[in-house]
Amino acid sequence: MITAVEKTYKLYQEKMQELADVNHAISVLNWDQETYLPQKGASLRAQQISTLTKIAHQLATSEELGDLLHQLSEQENLNEWERRNVTESLSAYQKKQKYNTEFVVRLSKVTSECYQSWLKARTASDFSIFQPALEEMIQLKREECELLGYDEHPYDALLDQFEPGEKTSNLLPLFKDVHQQLVDFVKEISDRSQVEDQWMYKYYPKDKQWQFGLEVLEQMGYDFKAGRQDVSAHPFTTSFGSNDVRVTTRIDEYNLYEMIWSCIHEGGHALYEQGLKQEDYGLPTGNYLSLGIHESQSRLWENNVGRSLPFWKANYKRLQEAFPENLQTVDLEKFYKTVNIVKPSLIRTNADELTYHFHILIRFLIEKELIEGSIKVKDIPQIWNQKYKEYLNIDVPSDKEGCLQDIHWSHGSLGYFPTYSLGSFYAAQFYQQAEKEIPDLEYQITNGNMRPLLQWLRTKIHQYGKFYTAEDLCIAITGEKLTFQYFMDYAKKKYGYIYGLKTK
Amino acid sequence: MITAVEKTYKLYQEKMQELADVNHAISVLNWDQETYLPQKGASLRAQQISTLTKIAHQLATSEELGDLLHQLSEQENLNEWERRNVTESLSAYQKKQKYNTEFVVRLSKVTSECYQSWLKARTASDFSIFQPALEEMIQLKREECELLGYDEHPYDALLDQFEPGEKTSNLLPLFKDVHQQLVDFVKEISDRSQVEDQWMYKYYPKDKQWQFGLEVLEQMGYDFKAGRQDVSAHPFTTSFGSNDVRVTTRIDEYNLYEMIWSCIHEGGHALYEQGLKQEDYGLPTGNYLSLGIHESQSRLWENNVGRSLPFWKANYKRLQEAFPENLQTVDLEKFYKTVNIVKPSLIRTNADELTYHFHILIRFLIEKELIEGSIKVKDIPQIWNQKYKEYLNIDVPSDKEGCLQDIHWSHGSLGYFPTYSLGSFYAAQFYQQAEKEIPDLEYQITNGNMRPLLQWLRTKIHQYGKFYTAEDLCIAITGEKLTFQYFMDYAKKKYGYIYGLKTK
Repeated sequence: MITAVEKTYKLYQEKMQELADVNHAISVLNWDQETYLPQKGASLRAQQISTLTKIAHQLATSEELGDLLHQLSEQENLNEWERRNVTESLSAYQKKQKYNTEFVVRLSKVTSECYQSWLKARTASDFSIFQPALEEMIQLKREECELLGYDEHPYDALLDQFEPGEKTSNLLPLFKDVHQQLVDFVKEISDRSQVEDQWMYKYYPKDKQWQFGLEVLEQMGYDFKAGRQDVSAHPFTTSFGSNDVRVTTRIDEYNLYEMIWSCIHEGGHALYEQGLKQEDYGLPTGNYLSLGIHESQSRLWENNVGRSLPFWKANYKRLQEAFPENLQTVDLEKFYKTVNIVKPSLIRTNADELTYHFHILIRFLIEKELIEGSIKVKDIPQIWNQKYKEYLNIDVPSDKEGCLQDIHWSHGSLGYFPTYSLGSFYAAQFYQQAEKEIPDLEYQITNGNMRPLLQWLRTKIHQYGKFYTAEDLCIAITGEKLTFQYFMDYAKKKYGYIYGLKTK
Repeated sequence: MITAVEKTYKLYQEKMQELADVNHAISVLNWDQETYLPQKGASLRAQQISTLTKIAHQLATSEELGDLLHQLSEQENLNEWERRNVTESLSAYQKKQKYNTEFVVRLSKVTSECYQSWLKARTASDFSIFQPALEEMIQLKREECELLGYDEHPYDALLDQFEPGEKTSNLLPLFKDVHQQLVDFVKEISDRSQVEDQWMYKYYPKDKQWQFGLEVLEQMGYDFKAGRQDVSAHPFTTSFGSNDVRVTTRIDEYNLYEMIWSCIHEGGHALYEQGLKQEDYGLPTGNYLSLGIHESQSRLWENNVGRSLPFWKANYKRLQEAFPENLQTVDLEKFYKTVNIVKPSLIRTNADELTYHFHILIRFLIEKELIEGSIKVKDIPQIWNQKYKEYLNIDVPSDKEGCLQDIHWSHGSLGYFPTYSLGSFYAAQFYQQAEKEIPDLEYQITNGNMRPLLQWLRTKIHQYGKFYTAEDLCIAITGEKLTFQYFMDYAKKKYGYIYGLKTK
């Protein structure tokens, strides 16, 4: 006999699965757009995506769903897992309800204008072209904060959209640590001599790179029966359900950096998605926790594993065999040092794993101050350039290579950048725990066996979806909240060795 | 100033475009399923398609749409084009309204069972396994005829779903002509000696076949900026709007027949879709007329063009250059005769362009009699085999190669088969008209210039979508209704030459 509560829960689950079906259909349309869409199909495709997005919004805000959620939230007969789903779904539902149609229409209009003016501004390398639209966007985002509500700082409302529960008051001390500890450490590195890496820019034929990338994914444990890799202009991971998680890559035949680590990075994202509970399809517990946790998975594989000596002990010989002309004179040690060069640079997406966080720190501070109103949009270029000098000791030669380099603000994605750094810091903290709990981890990786690590990530993180908050997950796994120290320890150990620094 | 009627028409158009967006999203999901879907993604994909299909049905039967259509149907201020759209949409809307939920659920359940039991029956080559499910299906289809209504014959209600307006009373004399004229003609051919075609089954490498197929599509005028070709198990054409019309093909490295004509066939379908009016996206006038007219386009290219001497005068040299080992000793004349071998055979999809119609005739008669109740499902194998003997002079060795060879009945697609023959007959009638109106057509094709023909098809057929009924379109183009004589004239001229028959 099925009880009334079970019946209501089942109805709720069906509604959520329908919504997931539509959202995944949108993902298929987007995936196709980035991989196989013929040129002339673009405008109709945009219209088709927009129609499905409207339908998804209707499903996500329907009265029926609201009624089911309110009924279930008052029930005592739910198990812990079910309760968590209902709470999460209700909270998401209520947040969506806060948006009135007028605001949504304005936001969509301004977003579209903002993106167009960013494209123009970037081409002209002139921030003033972007300024009016960005001012409107910031104004709207400030309204959005009020609409959504917050306890401490308006920026928290934006953070919450990408990193549920994250707070400005948490990020400030975190980034203060970044500032205090990382700036000096990077300065120390800058004084040492660098390895020469011109051979990374020799000719590396496409087919062999592609093949190597597939082998790396295979080794990581990516399931090709539940996914595939294709080529796109910008690498990404997309999921249509945990049994169909696809990655894309791009190959530059004159840059070996490009494909390898984007492949490992997207592979890390994909392993997370493939590890989500199939039977919780459509429910919060079958969905990724937050962007920060998602990024922790990609960065753990990309950096903690994919730029480690054990990983390349397992794989470098194969790489040398694929490109003997370029690599036969480069030994493993040199290769390892090369792929870990730390050097302050202008462009975030090209940054090494240490100076990367200065890029984020700068964006975080500017976003926070724009939202609280303590700086003005028109002052962004000057503040940007001054901070790049302060943190990275770099002169920004143009807006294009400066404050116009990222697409995020033009999309209205404020509050997004911090999740990149959170990802790295979570990754460091998780990885040191994995090292503790898997005593022969390094040995296994050196032998090309990534299964113990994947199994650990599956058990500790993937299978839970949104069952925990990020903070609770971190405590459950490592016994404490997110702490910058783990990243700093990792950095000191690794780069101390690479750059021959004295351990303090 | 926009009038009230214009406003209503615009609302109607928007609703239709939304519906088209969802239907095209389904097509993208289906396309991906047949081309790139990883193995484990299949069951979720089926669920996603089913959810979108439900949403499309809701949109197509919504009260708002019904109200708009009823309002518009009473308006006098519509132009001819608008009026046609409203009439067509209202008629489609009313037909959908005739289905009650109970019937739809039963049909979907029986269809799924019927398909499964057909698969089993075919594997076992035992019709009796399929019989109970097919009996249920026929019963449901007979109910469907009553539900939908008809003027003359219940089977008309089913025909109408694929070939709007087509009637059993039209098909009976048409297929009587097929019987009376084609059976004897094929018998005459059977008495002549056949060319030897073993060299068609030599090794033809995949890449070169693929390349040749692309060149043929290009030559036909298929727009690769508004489409693409991929590989799938069964070739098909799918449209996501006239600016994104995709074809698929399959390549058998030991059968040169396979790829070439499937490529041309799908190319013909695709040219029709690419030629539909973009600005009428979502409306009947922006949609293909009927399956018969669709098939007329694929068959015209496949047979009237793609198996003609002029076409191979333009292309055979290139084919020989691609496969010199196999083709250097085969001259054009031999190649032309080979690709036009007429020989009665068991399997419809492998049949030549003449005996093909006996396969359809047999299916049509059986379907009609099942629906009117004059034969029983259990008698199908016996009737099937007896008719194959009568029309094709062939003994059917097993159900698998006999009445279980097609998927159609297992899907409930009764009334579909006749559209294949209609396609060929329309093609013959259209093509003789094109020859009249483009005096140097043969010369142009011999020179590889297909543009005049494509332009003619665009002007006469493609641009109209559903503006005309099939009958009216045929009259508008050729001055008379569909007449079997044109196909017979074509057959006699072509095969009289090939088989050296006396012209009567």
